[in-house]
Amino acid sequence: MEGRTTAAFQGKTAPPDGSRHRVAEGAMATIAIFGATGDLAGRKLIPAIYNLWNAGFLPKRIAVVGVARREKSDAAFREEMCAALKKFSRTNEGLGDACDPFVSNLYYQQLEFDDDAGYARLKERLNEIESKNGFPGHRLYYLAVGPEYFAPIIESLGKAGLVRAAGEDRWTRVVVEKPFGHDLPSARELNARISAVLSEDQILRIDHYLGKETVQNIFAFRFGNAIFEPLFNQKYVDHVQITMAETVGMEGRRGAFYDGTGALRDVVQNHVLQLMCLVAMEPPALPGAKHTRDEKMKVLSSVDLPVNEPLSTWCVRGQYAEGTNIPGYLSEEGVAPDSVTETYVALRLKIDNWRWAGVPFMLRSGKRLKSRVTEIAIQFKHPPTHFFQEMGVPMPKPNTLAFRIQPDEAISLTFNAKSPGMEMNIQGVTMDFNYGHTFKEELPEAYERLLLDALRGDSTLFMRADEIDYAWQIATRIAEAWQDAPPPELYRPGTWGPSEANKLFEHCEGSWRQP
Amino acid sequence: MEGRTTAAFQGKTAPPDGSRHRVAEGAMATIAIFGATGDLAGRKLIPAIYNLWNAGFLPKRIAVVGVARREKSDAAFREEMCAALKKFSRTNEGLGDACDPFVSNLYYQQLEFDDDAGYARLKERLNEIESKNGFPGHRLYYLAVGPEYFAPIIESLGKAGLVRAAGEDRWTRVVVEKPFGHDLPSARELNARISAVLSEDQILRIDHYLGKETVQNIFAFRFGNAIFEPLFNQKYVDHVQITMAETVGMEGRRGAFYDGTGALRDVVQNHVLQLMCLVAMEPPALPGAKHTRDEKMKVLSSVDLPVNEPLSTWCVRGQYAEGTNIPGYLSEEGVAPDSVTETYVALRLKIDNWRWAGVPFMLRSGKRLKSRVTEIAIQFKHPPTHFFQEMGVPMPKPNTLAFRIQPDEAISLTFNAKSPGMEMNIQGVTMDFNYGHTFKEELPEAYERLLLDALRGDSTLFMRADEIDYAWQIATRIAEAWQDAPPPELYRPGTWGPSEANKLFEHCEGSWRQP
Repeated sequence: MEGRTTAAFQGKTAPPDGSRHRVAEGAMATIAIFGATGDLAGRKLIPAIYNLWNAGFLPKRIAVVGVARREKSDAAFREEMCAALKKFSRTNEGLGDACDPFVSNLYYQQLEFDDDAGYARLKERLNEIESKNGFPGHRLYYLAVGPEYFAPIIESLGKAGLVRAAGEDRWTRVVVEKPFGHDLPSARELNARISAVLSEDQILRIDHYLGKETVQNIFAFRFGNAIFEPLFNQKYVDHVQITMAETVGMEGRRGAFYDGTGALRDVVQNHVLQLMCLVAMEPPALPGAKHTRDEKMKVLSSVDLPVNEPLSTWCVRGQYAEGTNIPGYLSEEGVAPDSVTETYVALRLKIDNWRWAGVPFMLRSGKRLKSRVTEIAIQFKHPPTHFFQEMGVPMPKPNTLAFRIQPDEAISLTFNAKSPGMEMNIQGVTMDFNYGHTFKEELPEAYERLLLDALRGDSTLFMRADEIDYAWQIATRIAEAWQDAPPPELYRPGTWGPSEANKLFEHCEGSWRQP
Repeated sequence: MEGRTTAAFQGKTAPPDGSRHRVAEGAMATIAIFGATGDLAGRKLIPAIYNLWNAGFLPKRIAVVGVARREKSDAAFREEMCAALKKFSRTNEGLGDACDPFVSNLYYQQLEFDDDAGYARLKERLNEIESKNGFPGHRLYYLAVGPEYFAPIIESLGKAGLVRAAGEDRWTRVVVEKPFGHDLPSARELNARISAVLSEDQILRIDHYLGKETVQNIFAFRFGNAIFEPLFNQKYVDHVQITMAETVGMEGRRGAFYDGTGALRDVVQNHVLQLMCLVAMEPPALPGAKHTRDEKMKVLSSVDLPVNEPLSTWCVRGQYAEGTNIPGYLSEEGVAPDSVTETYVALRLKIDNWRWAGVPFMLRSGKRLKSRVTEIAIQFKHPPTHFFQEMGVPMPKPNTLAFRIQPDEAISLTFNAKSPGMEMNIQGVTMDFNYGHTFKEELPEAYERLLLDALRGDSTLFMRADEIDYAWQIATRIAEAWQDAPPPELYRPGTWGPSEANKLFEHCEGSWRQP
């Protein structure tokens, strides 16, 4: 959530809360991508930078330095990235055969992440590129590497003098990919190590979900309209459902990583809790990063897990079994044959504050589910009285407001209307607002938005240390509750998960949506 | 607003408030249409009866007796009505060449409306038809005649013993077309004369607007959803606009009637005030006629005309001038060359109760306007704070909820969303619920619904004496305010009326919609 980009980028506006650095016209930053030969760089980061550049959000002359362990020439890197662009970029206008002139902005620097001499060479190379281009020396380091390298790389950057102190004219910022820790102690340790080198302002912990248009639209929707906010509270809302469902399993070599992680740590601790914060938070005092993250923190610190109730009434974990021509989780490559890692988790939690007291938040996420969909659904209460009862009309279904985040970003509102005819028949109907249908332009990729925000220094859509800490506290309490619990419930691939998850609704209205 | 028709008709259900007579299975009423050779009978009433009959809402055997001054045989009447059906009925399945067997239910009886002997013959004829068909003798008299005949016909029916006392096993009901009086004294006199013969239960004062699906859907929408009613009040609503715009002028011979009437009496006093009541009333205790009409009455009796403010700030009347190839009102056939009759009226009034205090209700109606549209639009307030101001985003437009009653019955909600891209741009977008698109079946005509309700004895959608009286009180106060006022403002055909009407918004937000 930031101001009008171009203006801000040209130094015309800056919000008074200091959340965004003023970037003078023509200012140029060097972007160094660690892990430049990996999947994320080719699929997402380079295409995002290309699209920002192509759309005029970046200066004509930029410098993107790929950093990785393999030996590679600039030319080879440019060629590879050109191939990646052609395959993955959402636009390819003007790419041409050799992706010129865009790829002439790309450089490659070999580095072993634990080799101090390598950082010295990197420093020289960056200075050389910046001086050749006449860049002032702003630097964005993007760590698209395994989480075990986050702290070592940042420490090495610090040691090598590659980090400017916060407040210096030439800024240094570091984007850290997920996962940020694998539990509370590891997250705290990681934070401590990083914070020894970087100030909180300089650390951008990415959650690419927050870069999605619908997610940002939750702000516009809630605070740009007068009629929804009065309804977003315990007086009118029965419960909130957040679903993040995937159809894929452990494609490729993902099993080895996933088996040590599971759905709770992989997506609930970050994406799902973040979405919950956005829909549940109070309106921030101002739109900037500090105020928004303060409000998200307040939500996380109000989370009340019903740990004193039987586990099966508030949390269900599942693991996908074998399906027709689909391997079960335990047969996936890299997965321990007796693994109890959850590929599905469903949660009922409460947010114990004035706004949401008594409103269950039903969260679920899983792999090999029926459809690929991420959505937030606000399920309202029934009308306080069943006005049409004597007419033999069944109780109308409660209203639902759904934000679909992927695929096909959309907002839909279901309400009850009279179906035409002589009888008073009441029927649920849906009003849809579909992004793609309404706005003909293609939606930017989440990474474009987040990279631009990182260059602007707007950290609204990145996670602050205290948010991460609280989210891990929540996840840890859940994981602890699992310790003496039976293993995950099995579910068939292509379903909506284990039927035990329906029990979470025993003490509240409704059932899981099948979006 | 009634129960499930078929069941009610078969005597399976009856609401406890007594607003609907229990009609035993197979019960048959005789419908006598006075003015059967007129426009309304052929265009609307006979087609409505045909469609009800064809859809199974009426028993296979019915009796419809056309009554009018002209001499005509049953056969000729049947032939004429068959032609009318083919021209005007919304369905013609199974009509065949001769419209059999439907038209064999039709009869014709000549009657001079002031001839007592004629009523005696009508009585004989009705008895004869009923006895031939084995009908119990329930009768619905439909007065599709000029308003000057309402009282004389009802008095003659009474004198001739054609009216059963209320509460008798065989019911008698009389549908009275509009206009019901042309001012307060004439309406009161008419009421007094009719009430001397009929009890209030037996009088059904029609307002065909109330039979339209969207109008009935206002009930379903307001009381079948939990999320709208909390917003329908002075805390969230800035103002309400009700528009009833026609593109036609004085086609045919309408000028002579209209010049003695004007927009205020012709549509504002009835249709427009009725629509206002439906949107503004409190939820009735129960859905039946009594409770609904009690609530509408409360709205009418809370109407506060700003008569102490200058007229031009709360009421503007207009008269259409000459346009390109369009005669001005003063040149229309039957219109006095110095007429000050208004063909347009715009009003700002207040409903001085707890719910609506301080919320202007902006009403307008006119002929020769830009489009033919009837709608109710609820214009909500701005959000209490302009959250996005510092981002350079202009204040988002307030939300609007619009019920379009004709043409293309629909409900639409405008709200603000982020337009895709790197900037926080907020744009108004619209969610639509269109009846025709959602429900594939054709909408029934308003007259079908109202005729069926009349047969059921459900008077919810008809106007009660006290409603008419209050509505005339309002119209009379407006007409009185015009007495010393300048003549109507002129406006060009095909526009939205005189620009003076914009002044009504001087003390509130917004402007007239251009729907």
